[in-house]
Amino acid sequence: MAHIEEAPAAMIDRVASLLESFVGERPLTLAELARRSHVPRSSAHRILQRLVELGWVERKEFTYTLGVRMFELGSQFTRRRTVPRAAVAVMAELHRRSGMTVYLSMLVGSEIMHLERIGSWPSASGQWSAGARQPVPLTAPGRALLATLSPDHWPELHFGYAPTQYSIQSRSQLLRDLARVRDRGGVAVDAQGTHHGVTVVAAPITTMDDDGHFALSVCGPTRALDLVSTITEVRNAAATVWRVANGVPTLRPRAVPELPAVELQLANGGPAAG
Amino acid sequence: MAHIEEAPAAMIDRVASLLESFVGERPLTLAELARRSHVPRSSAHRILQRLVELGWVERKEFTYTLGVRMFELGSQFTRRRTVPRAAVAVMAELHRRSGMTVYLSMLVGSEIMHLERIGSWPSASGQWSAGARQPVPLTAPGRALLATLSPDHWPELHFGYAPTQYSIQSRSQLLRDLARVRDRGGVAVDAQGTHHGVTVVAAPITTMDDDGHFALSVCGPTRALDLVSTITEVRNAAATVWRVANGVPTLRPRAVPELPAVELQLANGGPAAG
Repeated sequence: MAHIEEAPAAMIDRVASLLESFVGERPLTLAELARRSHVPRSSAHRILQRLVELGWVERKEFTYTLGVRMFELGSQFTRRRTVPRAAVAVMAELHRRSGMTVYLSMLVGSEIMHLERIGSWPSASGQWSAGARQPVPLTAPGRALLATLSPDHWPELHFGYAPTQYSIQSRSQLLRDLARVRDRGGVAVDAQGTHHGVTVVAAPITTMDDDGHFALSVCGPTRALDLVSTITEVRNAAATVWRVANGVPTLRPRAVPELPAVELQLANGGPAAG
Repeated sequence: MAHIEEAPAAMIDRVASLLESFVGERPLTLAELARRSHVPRSSAHRILQRLVELGWVERKEFTYTLGVRMFELGSQFTRRRTVPRAAVAVMAELHRRSGMTVYLSMLVGSEIMHLERIGSWPSASGQWSAGARQPVPLTAPGRALLATLSPDHWPELHFGYAPTQYSIQSRSQLLRDLARVRDRGGVAVDAQGTHHGVTVVAAPITTMDDDGHFALSVCGPTRALDLVSTITEVRNAAATVWRVANGVPTLRPRAVPELPAVELQLANGGPAAG
Protein backbone atom coordinates (compact mmCIF):
# COMPACT_ATOMS: atom_id res chain seq x y z
CA MET A 1 0.00 0.00 0.00
CA ALA A 2 3.11 2.22 0.01
CA HIS A 3 1.97 3.94 -3.15
CA ILE A 4 -1.17 5.06 -1.36
CA GLU A 5 0.87 6.73 1.34
CA GLU A 6 2.86 8.60 -1.28
CA ALA A 7 0.16 10.82 -2.65
CA PRO A 8 -2.94 10.97 -0.48
CA ALA A 9 -3.45 14.66 -1.18
CA ALA A 10 -3.55 14.16 -4.95
CA MET A 11 -6.11 11.36 -4.63
CA ILE A 12 -8.21 13.20 -2.05
CA ASP A 13 -8.19 16.25 -4.30
CA ARG A 14 -9.57 14.21 -7.18
CA VAL A 15 -12.36 12.86 -4.99
CA ALA A 16 -13.01 16.36 -3.66
CA SER A 17 -13.00 17.95 -7.12
CA LEU A 18 -15.48 15.37 -8.35
CA LEU A 19 -17.84 15.75 -5.39
CA GLU A 20 -17.63 19.54 -5.42
CA SER A 21 -18.40 19.71 -9.11
CA PHE A 22 -21.92 18.46 -8.23
CA VAL A 23 -22.83 21.89 -6.87
CA GLY A 24 -25.73 22.88 -9.08
CA GLU A 25 -29.29 21.86 -9.65
CA ARG A 26 -29.26 18.85 -11.99
CA PRO A 27 -27.73 15.38 -12.34
CA LEU A 28 -24.45 15.30 -14.29
CA THR A 29 -22.95 12.85 -16.76
CA LEU A 30 -19.49 11.33 -16.44
CA ALA A 31 -18.27 13.61 -19.23
CA GLU A 32 -19.59 16.71 -17.47
CA LEU A 33 -18.11 15.66 -14.13
CA ALA A 34 -14.71 14.92 -15.68
CA ARG A 35 -14.76 18.31 -17.42
CA ARG A 36 -15.81 20.26 -14.33
CA SER A 37 -13.41 18.47 -11.97
CA HIS A 38 -10.45 18.31 -14.38
CA VAL A 39 -10.07 14.63 -13.41
CA PRO A 40 -9.17 12.31 -16.30
CA ARG A 41 -12.30 10.53 -17.48
CA SER A 42 -11.02 7.02 -16.79
CA SER A 43 -9.94 7.97 -13.28
CA ALA A 44 -13.20 9.87 -12.71
CA HIS A 45 -15.14 6.79 -13.72
CA ARG A 46 -13.28 4.53 -11.29
CA ILE A 47 -13.63 7.01 -8.44
CA LEU A 48 -17.35 7.53 -9.11
CA GLN A 49 -17.91 3.76 -9.16
CA ARG A 50 -16.44 3.55 -5.68
CA LEU A 51 -18.39 6.58 -4.45
CA VAL A 52 -21.59 4.98 -5.73
CA GLU A 53 -20.77 1.81 -3.78
CA LEU A 54 -20.24 3.95 -0.69
CA GLY A 55 -23.58 5.75 -1.14
CA TRP A 56 -21.86 9.12 -1.50
CA VAL A 57 -22.95 9.37 -5.11
CA GLU A 58 -26.06 7.98 -6.78
CA ARG A 59 -26.16 6.85 -10.37
CA LYS A 60 -29.33 6.81 -12.44
CA GLU A 61 -28.79 5.52 -15.95
CA PHE A 62 -26.07 7.83 -17.30
CA THR A 63 -26.21 10.63 -14.75
CA TYR A 64 -24.85 11.06 -11.24
CA THR A 65 -26.08 13.03 -8.22
CA LEU A 66 -24.80 13.34 -4.66
CA GLY A 67 -26.05 10.46 -2.50
CA VAL A 68 -27.92 10.21 0.76
CA ARG A 69 -24.75 9.25 2.66
CA MET A 70 -23.38 12.69 1.81
CA PHE A 71 -26.51 14.25 3.28
CA GLU A 72 -26.20 12.10 6.39
CA LEU A 73 -22.60 13.15 6.96
CA GLY A 74 -23.34 16.79 6.23
CA SER A 75 -26.18 16.85 8.74
CA GLN A 76 -23.63 16.02 11.44
CA PHE A 77 -22.22 19.51 11.06
CA THR A 78 -25.27 21.27 12.52
CA ARG A 79 -26.25 18.44 14.85
CA ARG A 80 -23.03 18.84 16.77
CA ARG A 81 -23.01 22.60 17.18
CA THR A 82 -24.61 24.35 20.13
CA VAL A 83 -26.11 27.35 18.31
CA PRO A 84 -27.95 25.41 15.57
CA ARG A 85 -29.23 22.95 18.18
CA ALA A 86 -30.42 25.78 20.42
CA ALA A 87 -31.98 27.62 17.47
CA VAL A 88 -34.36 24.88 16.28
CA ALA A 89 -37.07 25.51 18.88
CA VAL A 90 -36.76 29.30 18.74
CA MET A 91 -36.91 29.38 14.93
CA ALA A 92 -40.00 27.15 14.82
CA GLU A 93 -41.70 29.32 17.42
CA LEU A 94 -40.86 32.51 15.54
CA HIS A 95 -42.11 31.05 12.27
CA ARG A 96 -45.33 29.88 13.93
CA ARG A 97 -45.95 33.28 15.47
CA SER A 98 -44.94 35.47 12.53
CA GLY A 99 -45.57 33.25 9.51
CA MET A 100 -42.36 34.68 8.05
CA THR A 101 -39.49 32.57 6.75
CA VAL A 102 -36.84 32.18 9.46
CA TYR A 103 -33.13 31.56 8.76
CA LEU A 104 -30.09 30.59 10.74
CA SER A 105 -26.98 31.64 8.82
CA MET A 106 -23.26 31.38 9.44
CA LEU A 107 -20.18 33.31 8.37
CA VAL A 108 -18.17 31.04 6.04
CA GLY A 109 -15.06 32.71 4.69
CA SER A 110 -16.22 35.86 2.91
CA GLU A 111 -19.74 34.56 2.46
CA ILE A 112 -22.92 33.92 4.44
CA MET A 113 -24.30 30.39 4.35
CA HIS A 114 -27.81 29.41 5.44
CA LEU A 115 -27.74 26.44 7.84
CA GLU A 116 -31.45 26.19 8.64
CA ARG A 117 -34.55 27.57 7.00
CA ILE A 118 -38.17 27.37 8.14
CA GLY A 119 -40.72 28.52 5.59
CA SER A 120 -40.71 28.75 1.82
CA TRP A 121 -41.38 32.37 1.00
CA PRO A 122 -40.29 33.90 -1.38
CA SER A 123 -38.90 30.65 -2.80
CA ALA A 124 -38.00 27.14 -1.63
CA SER A 125 -34.86 26.94 -3.75
CA GLY A 126 -31.81 28.82 -5.05
CA GLN A 127 -30.30 31.47 -2.79
CA TRP A 128 -33.08 30.85 -0.24
CA SER A 129 -32.10 27.22 0.45
CA ALA A 130 -30.09 25.82 3.32
CA GLY A 131 -26.54 25.39 2.03
CA ALA A 132 -26.76 28.44 -0.24
CA ARG A 133 -24.10 31.16 -0.03
CA GLN A 134 -24.25 34.92 -0.56
CA PRO A 135 -21.65 37.72 -0.31
CA VAL A 136 -21.43 39.04 3.27
CA PRO A 137 -22.05 42.76 2.55
CA LEU A 138 -25.11 42.00 0.41
CA THR A 139 -27.15 40.32 3.15
CA ALA A 140 -28.72 41.40 6.45
CA PRO A 141 -27.19 38.41 8.33
CA GLY A 142 -23.79 39.32 6.88
CA ARG A 143 -24.01 42.97 7.94
CA ALA A 144 -25.37 42.04 11.39
CA LEU A 145 -22.23 39.91 11.86
CA LEU A 146 -19.82 42.48 10.42
CA ALA A 147 -21.15 44.97 12.98
CA THR A 148 -20.06 42.62 15.77
CA LEU A 149 -16.49 42.31 14.43
CA SER A 150 -13.76 44.89 14.47
CA PRO A 151 -12.80 45.59 10.82
CA ASP A 152 -9.39 43.93 11.32
CA HIS A 153 -11.30 40.68 11.96
CA TRP A 154 -13.47 41.09 8.86
CA PRO A 155 -13.15 38.56 6.06
CA GLU A 156 -12.16 39.80 2.62
CA LEU A 157 -15.26 41.57 1.31
CA HIS A 158 -16.46 41.37 -2.27
CA PHE A 159 -18.59 44.13 -3.77
CA GLY A 160 -20.02 44.77 -7.20
CA TYR A 161 -22.62 41.99 -7.33
CA ALA A 162 -25.85 43.99 -7.18
CA PRO A 163 -29.03 42.00 -7.84
CA THR A 164 -31.17 45.16 -7.37
CA GLN A 165 -30.71 48.93 -7.35
CA TYR A 166 -31.02 48.76 -3.55
CA SER A 167 -28.02 46.43 -3.15
CA ILE A 168 -25.02 47.58 -1.15
CA GLN A 169 -22.27 47.91 -3.75
CA SER A 170 -19.39 49.70 -2.06
CA ARG A 171 -17.45 49.81 1.19
CA SER A 172 -18.75 53.33 1.91
CA GLN A 173 -22.37 52.19 1.51
CA LEU A 174 -21.55 49.27 3.81
CA LEU A 175 -20.06 51.50 6.51
CA ARG A 176 -23.10 53.79 6.41
CA ASP A 177 -25.37 50.76 6.82
CA LEU A 178 -23.31 49.37 9.70
CA ALA A 179 -23.81 52.66 11.54
CA ARG A 180 -27.56 52.14 11.18
CA VAL A 181 -27.15 48.54 12.38
CA ARG A 182 -25.46 49.81 15.56
CA ASP A 183 -28.21 52.40 16.01
CA ARG A 184 -30.64 49.47 16.07
CA GLY A 185 -28.62 47.76 18.81
CA GLY A 186 -27.05 45.30 16.37
CA VAL A 187 -30.02 44.44 14.15
CA ALA A 188 -29.47 44.67 10.39
CA VAL A 189 -32.24 45.38 7.90
CA ASP A 190 -32.01 44.73 4.17
CA ALA A 191 -34.93 46.14 2.19
CA GLN A 192 -34.95 44.75 -1.39
CA GLY A 193 -31.15 44.63 -1.55
CA THR A 194 -31.07 40.96 -2.50
CA HIS A 195 -34.48 40.62 -4.14
CA HIS A 196 -37.26 43.03 -5.12
CA GLY A 197 -40.11 43.06 -2.62
CA VAL A 198 -38.18 41.12 0.03
CA THR A 199 -37.05 42.55 3.36
CA VAL A 200 -34.70 40.61 5.65
CA VAL A 201 -34.15 41.50 9.33
CA ALA A 202 -31.17 39.87 11.06
CA ALA A 203 -29.58 39.76 14.52
CA PRO A 204 -26.21 38.19 15.39
CA ILE A 205 -25.69 35.29 17.81
CA THR A 206 -22.28 35.23 19.44
CA THR A 207 -20.94 32.16 21.21
CA MET A 208 -18.63 31.95 24.19
CA ASP A 209 -16.74 28.99 22.77
CA ASP A 210 -15.28 30.06 19.44
CA ASP A 211 -17.77 27.95 17.49
CA GLY A 212 -18.48 30.31 14.59
CA HIS A 213 -20.41 33.50 13.87
CA PHE A 214 -24.15 32.93 13.48
CA ALA A 215 -27.10 35.17 12.68
CA LEU A 216 -30.83 34.65 12.98
CA SER A 217 -33.04 36.38 10.43
CA VAL A 218 -36.57 36.60 9.14
CA CYS A 219 -37.61 37.25 5.60
CA GLY A 220 -40.93 38.82 4.63
CA PRO A 221 -42.65 40.98 2.01
CA THR A 222 -41.32 44.55 2.10
CA ARG A 223 -44.83 45.98 1.76
CA ALA A 224 -46.43 43.98 4.59
CA LEU A 225 -43.60 43.56 7.08
CA ASP A 226 -43.89 45.67 10.25
CA LEU A 227 -40.28 46.75 10.73
CA VAL A 228 -40.45 47.95 14.34
CA SER A 229 -42.08 44.81 15.77
CA THR A 230 -40.00 42.51 13.53
CA ILE A 231 -36.74 44.09 14.75
CA THR A 232 -37.81 43.41 18.34
CA GLU A 233 -38.91 39.85 17.52
CA VAL A 234 -35.65 38.99 15.80
CA ARG A 235 -33.52 40.63 18.50
CA ASN A 236 -35.34 38.70 21.24
CA ALA A 237 -35.18 35.42 19.33
CA ALA A 238 -31.44 35.80 18.76
CA ALA A 239 -30.96 36.67 22.42
CA THR A 240 -32.90 33.57 23.45
CA VAL A 241 -30.82 31.34 21.20
CA TRP A 242 -27.69 32.92 22.65
CA ARG A 243 -28.90 32.26 26.20
CA VAL A 244 -29.81 28.63 25.48
CA ALA A 245 -26.59 27.98 23.51
CA ASN A 246 -24.45 29.44 26.26
CA GLY A 247 -26.32 27.72 29.06
CA VAL A 248 -27.65 30.94 30.57
CA PRO A 249 -30.83 30.12 32.51
CA THR A 250 -33.76 31.26 30.40
CA LEU A 251 -37.55 31.19 30.26
CA ARG A 252 -39.30 29.62 27.31
CA PRO A 253 -38.80 31.60 24.05
CA ARG A 254 -42.32 33.01 24.07
CA ALA A 255 -41.75 34.50 27.52
CA VAL A 256 -39.00 36.91 26.54
CA PRO A 257 -40.78 40.22 25.82
CA GLU A 258 -37.71 42.27 26.69
CA LEU A 259 -34.23 41.39 27.85
CA PRO A 260 -31.95 43.26 30.27
CA ALA A 261 -29.79 45.69 28.30
CA VAL A 262 -26.57 43.91 29.20
CA GLU A 263 -27.72 40.57 27.76
CA LEU A 264 -29.16 42.25 24.72
CA GLN A 265 -25.79 43.88 24.14
CA LEU A 266 -24.00 40.55 24.52
CA ALA A 267 -26.51 38.83 22.26
CA ASN A 268 -25.90 41.56 19.73
CA GLY A 269 -22.19 41.04 19.78
CA GLY A 270 -20.97 42.99 22.76
CA PRO A 271 -19.43 46.46 22.77
CA ALA A 272 -18.73 46.36 19.02
CA ALA A 273 -22.48 46.50 18.44
CA GLY A 274 -23.26 49.04 21.17
CA MET B 1 0.64 9.87 -10.92
CA ALA B 2 0.42 6.26 -12.07
CA HIS B 3 0.43 5.04 -8.50
CA ILE B 4 -2.73 7.04 -7.86
CA GLU B 5 -4.54 5.23 -10.65
CA GLU B 6 -3.52 1.88 -9.21
CA ALA B 7 -5.54 1.98 -6.01
CA PRO B 8 -8.20 4.67 -5.97
CA ALA B 9 -10.66 2.45 -4.10
CA ALA B 10 -8.23 1.83 -1.24
CA MET B 11 -7.51 5.53 -0.84
CA ILE B 12 -11.16 6.54 -1.18
CA ASP B 13 -12.06 3.95 1.41
CA ARG B 14 -9.60 5.45 3.87
CA VAL B 15 -11.06 8.92 3.34
CA ALA B 16 -14.57 7.48 3.63
CA SER B 17 -13.77 5.49 6.77
CA LEU B 18 -12.32 8.58 8.40
CA LEU B 19 -15.25 10.82 7.51
CA GLU B 20 -17.84 8.22 8.45
CA SER B 21 -16.23 7.66 11.84
CA PHE B 22 -17.34 11.17 12.75
CA VAL B 23 -20.93 10.00 13.11
CA GLY B 24 -21.65 10.79 16.73
CA GLU B 25 -22.14 13.84 18.88
CA ARG B 26 -18.70 15.11 19.91
CA PRO B 27 -15.37 16.17 18.36
CA LEU B 28 -12.82 13.35 18.02
CA THR B 29 -9.05 13.19 18.45
CA LEU B 30 -6.67 11.80 15.85
CA ALA B 31 -6.21 8.68 17.98
CA GLU B 32 -9.96 8.11 18.20
CA LEU B 33 -10.44 8.66 14.46
CA ALA B 34 -7.59 6.29 13.59
CA ARG B 35 -9.05 3.64 15.90
CA ARG B 36 -12.61 4.00 14.61
CA SER B 37 -11.61 4.11 10.96
CA HIS B 38 -8.88 1.42 11.13
CA VAL B 39 -6.66 3.79 9.15
CA PRO B 40 -3.01 3.85 10.27
CA ARG B 41 -2.45 6.91 12.44
CA SER B 42 0.23 8.44 10.21
CA SER B 43 -1.93 8.07 7.12
CA ALA B 44 -5.01 9.31 9.01
CA HIS B 45 -3.07 12.40 10.06
CA ARG B 46 -2.02 13.20 6.48
CA ILE B 47 -5.53 12.64 5.13
CA LEU B 48 -7.12 14.77 7.86
CA GLN B 49 -4.67 17.58 7.18
CA ARG B 50 -5.82 17.64 3.57
CA LEU B 51 -9.51 17.40 4.53
CA VAL B 52 -9.03 20.36 6.87
CA GLU B 53 -7.49 22.37 4.01
CA LEU B 54 -10.53 21.46 1.89
CA GLY B 55 -12.98 22.55 4.62
CA TRP B 56 -14.46 19.05 4.86
CA VAL B 57 -13.08 18.66 8.37
CA GLU B 58 -12.49 21.31 11.03
CA ARG B 59 -9.72 21.10 13.57
CA LYS B 60 -9.90 22.83 16.95
CA GLU B 61 -6.79 22.28 19.04
CA PHE B 62 -6.51 18.49 19.19
CA THR B 63 -9.99 17.49 18.07
CA TYR B 64 -11.68 17.22 14.69
CA THR B 65 -15.28 17.66 13.55
CA LEU B 66 -16.94 17.53 10.14
CA GLY B 67 -16.63 20.86 8.35
CA VAL B 68 -19.08 23.26 6.77
CA ARG B 69 -18.11 22.16 3.25
CA MET B 70 -19.49 18.73 4.10
CA PHE B 71 -22.76 20.36 5.14
CA GLU B 72 -22.83 22.39 1.94
CA LEU B 73 -22.36 19.30 -0.23
CA GLY B 74 -24.84 17.27 1.77
CA SER B 75 -27.50 19.95 1.42
CA GLN B 76 -27.34 19.42 -2.35
CA PHE B 77 -29.01 16.06 -1.87
CA THR B 78 -32.37 17.49 -0.80
CA ARG B 79 -32.09 20.67 -2.87
CA ARG B 80 -32.08 18.67 -6.05
CA ARG B 81 -34.99 16.34 -5.33
CA THR B 82 -38.57 17.16 -6.24
CA VAL B 83 -40.31 15.79 -3.14
CA PRO B 84 -38.18 17.59 -0.52
CA ARG B 85 -38.45 20.80 -2.53
CA ALA B 86 -42.21 20.45 -2.81
CA ALA B 87 -42.52 19.53 0.87
CA VAL B 88 -40.95 22.66 2.38
CA ALA B 89 -44.00 24.91 2.06
CA VAL B 90 -46.48 22.19 3.05
CA MET B 91 -44.46 21.18 6.12
CA ALA B 92 -44.12 24.78 7.32
CA GLU B 93 -47.85 25.31 6.85
CA LEU B 94 -48.69 22.11 8.75
CA HIS B 95 -46.35 23.05 11.58
CA ARG B 96 -47.84 26.55 11.78
CA ARG B 97 -51.37 25.21 11.87
CA SER B 98 -50.85 22.25 14.19
CA GLY B 99 -47.86 23.30 16.29
CA MET B 100 -46.68 19.70 16.01
CA THR B 101 -43.24 18.67 14.82
CA VAL B 102 -43.35 17.80 11.12
CA TYR B 103 -40.95 15.37 9.42
CA LEU B 104 -40.06 14.40 5.88
CA SER B 105 -38.40 10.99 5.91
CA MET B 106 -36.97 8.69 3.26
CA LEU B 107 -36.43 4.97 2.91
CA VAL B 108 -32.65 4.35 2.97
CA GLY B 109 -31.76 0.68 2.75
CA SER B 110 -33.48 -1.04 5.65
CA GLU B 111 -33.82 2.18 7.62
CA ILE B 112 -35.82 5.39 7.69
CA MET B 113 -33.87 8.63 7.55
CA HIS B 114 -35.27 12.06 8.41
CA LEU B 115 -34.49 14.61 5.67
CA GLU B 116 -36.33 17.62 7.07
CA ARG B 117 -37.71 18.46 10.48
CA ILE B 118 -39.75 21.48 11.57
CA GLY B 119 -40.23 21.84 15.31
CA SER B 120 -38.27 20.62 18.29
CA TRP B 121 -40.68 18.50 20.32
CA PRO B 122 -39.95 16.09 21.99
CA SER B 123 -36.26 16.81 21.41
CA ALA B 124 -34.04 18.78 19.03
CA SER B 125 -31.38 16.08 18.85
CA GLY B 126 -30.68 12.34 18.66
CA GLN B 127 -33.18 10.18 16.79
CA TRP B 128 -35.35 13.25 16.18
CA SER B 129 -32.76 15.12 14.09
CA ALA B 130 -32.49 15.44 10.33
CA GLY B 131 -29.96 12.82 9.23
CA ALA B 132 -30.96 10.36 11.97
CA ARG B 133 -31.86 6.76 11.06
CA GLN B 134 -34.31 4.30 12.60
CA PRO B 135 -35.32 0.72 11.73
CA VAL B 136 -38.17 0.70 9.19
CA PRO B 137 -40.67 -1.46 11.12
CA LEU B 138 -40.24 0.60 14.29
CA THR B 139 -41.46 3.88 12.85
CA ALA B 140 -44.73 5.24 11.46
CA PRO B 141 -43.02 6.62 8.31
CA GLY B 142 -41.42 3.21 7.79
CA ARG B 143 -44.68 1.31 8.09
CA ALA B 144 -46.53 3.84 5.92
CA LEU B 145 -43.95 3.12 3.19
CA LEU B 146 -43.94 -0.67 3.67
CA ALA B 147 -47.70 -0.60 3.13
CA THR B 148 -47.14 0.93 -0.32
CA LEU B 149 -44.65 -1.76 -1.37
CA SER B 150 -45.34 -5.37 -2.23
CA PRO B 151 -43.38 -7.53 0.27
CA ASP B 152 -41.03 -8.73 -2.48
CA HIS B 153 -39.89 -5.09 -2.81
CA TRP B 154 -39.36 -4.69 0.93
CA PRO B 155 -35.85 -4.05 2.23
CA GLU B 156 -34.40 -6.54 4.69
CA LEU B 157 -36.24 -5.85 7.94
CA HIS B 158 -34.59 -5.89 11.36
CA PHE B 159 -36.63 -6.58 14.49
CA GLY B 160 -35.75 -6.94 18.14
CA TYR B 161 -34.84 -3.33 18.91
CA ALA B 162 -37.69 -2.30 21.19
CA PRO B 163 -37.29 1.06 22.95
CA THR B 164 -40.71 0.68 24.65
CA GLN B 165 -43.19 -2.11 25.42
CA TYR B 166 -45.34 -0.70 22.58
CA SER B 167 -42.63 -1.20 19.94
CA ILE B 168 -43.28 -3.51 17.01
CA GLN B 169 -40.90 -6.40 17.59
CA SER B 170 -41.89 -9.11 15.14
CA ARG B 171 -42.96 -9.65 11.56
CA SER B 172 -46.41 -10.82 12.70
CA GLN B 173 -46.92 -7.64 14.73
CA LEU B 174 -45.80 -5.67 11.68
CA LEU B 175 -48.25 -7.41 9.35
CA ARG B 176 -51.13 -6.78 11.77
CA ASP B 177 -50.16 -3.10 11.90
CA LEU B 178 -49.92 -2.82 8.10
CA ALA B 179 -53.49 -4.10 7.88
CA ARG B 180 -54.53 -1.20 10.12
CA VAL B 181 -52.47 1.16 7.94
CA ARG B 182 -54.43 0.03 4.88
CA ASP B 183 -57.71 0.42 6.80
CA ARG B 184 -56.68 4.07 7.29
CA GLY B 185 -56.14 4.52 3.54
CA GLY B 186 -52.38 4.30 3.88
CA VAL B 187 -51.77 6.35 7.04
CA ALA B 188 -49.58 4.76 9.73
CA VAL B 189 -49.89 5.55 13.43
CA ASP B 190 -47.23 4.78 16.01
CA ALA B 191 -48.35 5.37 19.59
CA GLN B 192 -45.38 5.29 22.01
CA GLY B 193 -43.59 2.63 19.95
CA THR B 194 -40.41 4.68 19.63
CA HIS B 195 -40.70 6.86 22.73
CA HIS B 196 -43.05 6.97 25.74
CA GLY B 197 -45.69 9.67 25.40
CA VAL B 198 -44.97 10.31 21.71
CA THR B 199 -47.38 9.52 18.87
CA VAL B 200 -46.29 9.76 15.23
CA VAL B 201 -48.74 9.83 12.30
CA ALA B 202 -47.28 9.26 8.82
CA ALA B 203 -48.47 9.16 5.20
CA PRO B 204 -46.41 8.05 2.19
CA ILE B 205 -45.50 10.22 -0.78
CA THR B 206 -44.91 8.29 -3.98
CA THR B 207 -43.17 9.83 -6.97
CA MET B 208 -43.69 9.15 -10.66
CA ASP B 209 -39.97 9.36 -11.41
CA ASP B 210 -38.21 6.68 -9.37
CA ASP B 211 -36.70 9.27 -7.03
CA GLY B 212 -37.06 7.44 -3.72
CA HIS B 213 -39.76 6.55 -1.18
CA PHE B 214 -40.73 9.45 1.06
CA ALA B 215 -43.12 9.86 3.97
CA LEU B 216 -44.51 12.92 5.69
CA SER B 217 -45.25 12.65 9.40
CA VAL B 218 -46.19 14.66 12.45
CA CYS B 219 -45.09 13.99 15.98
CA GLY B 220 -47.09 15.03 19.03
CA PRO B 221 -47.89 14.13 22.64
CA THR B 222 -49.90 10.90 22.80
CA ARG B 223 -52.24 12.36 25.43
CA ALA B 224 -53.09 15.58 23.60
CA LEU B 225 -52.97 14.55 19.94
CA ASP B 226 -56.38 14.29 18.21
CA LEU B 227 -55.87 11.16 16.12
CA VAL B 228 -58.82 11.51 13.74
CA SER B 229 -58.09 15.10 12.67
CA THR B 230 -54.32 14.49 12.59
CA ILE B 231 -54.72 11.51 10.26
CA THR B 232 -56.72 13.72 7.89
CA GLU B 233 -54.20 16.58 8.15
CA VAL B 234 -51.23 14.33 7.41
CA ARG B 235 -52.99 12.52 4.57
CA ASN B 236 -53.95 15.83 2.94
CA ALA B 237 -50.48 17.30 3.41
CA ALA B 238 -48.82 14.23 1.86
CA ALA B 239 -51.32 14.36 -1.02
CA THR B 240 -50.51 18.03 -1.58
CA VAL B 241 -46.76 17.37 -1.64
CA TRP B 242 -47.38 14.53 -4.08
CA ARG B 243 -49.43 16.82 -6.34
CA VAL B 244 -46.82 19.60 -6.30
CA ALA B 245 -43.88 17.18 -6.74
CA ASN B 246 -45.55 15.47 -9.69
CA GLY B 247 -46.71 18.69 -11.29
CA VAL B 248 -50.40 17.96 -10.85
CA PRO B 249 -52.25 21.27 -10.85
CA THR B 250 -53.13 22.05 -7.25
CA LEU B 251 -54.53 24.83 -5.09
CA ARG B 252 -52.45 26.32 -2.30
CA PRO B 253 -51.84 23.82 0.55
CA ARG B 254 -54.30 25.53 2.90
CA ALA B 255 -57.06 25.11 0.35
CA VAL B 256 -57.09 21.31 0.28
CA PRO B 257 -59.72 20.28 2.86
CA GLU B 258 -60.42 17.01 1.10
CA LEU B 259 -59.03 15.36 -2.02
CA PRO B 260 -60.78 13.22 -4.63
CA ALA B 261 -60.55 9.57 -3.63
CA VAL B 262 -58.46 8.64 -6.64
CA GLU B 263 -55.72 11.15 -5.85
CA LEU B 264 -55.80 10.24 -2.19
CA GLN B 265 -55.27 6.64 -3.20
CA LEU B 266 -52.36 7.57 -5.47
CA ALA B 267 -50.88 9.81 -2.81
CA ASN B 268 -51.14 6.89 -0.42
CA GLY B 269 -49.21 4.60 -2.69
CA GLY B 270 -51.78 3.34 -5.15
CA PRO B 271 -53.65 0.04 -5.03
CA ALA B 272 -51.19 -1.46 -2.53
CA ALA B 273 -52.48 0.99 0.03
CA GLY B 274 -56.18 0.66 -0.85
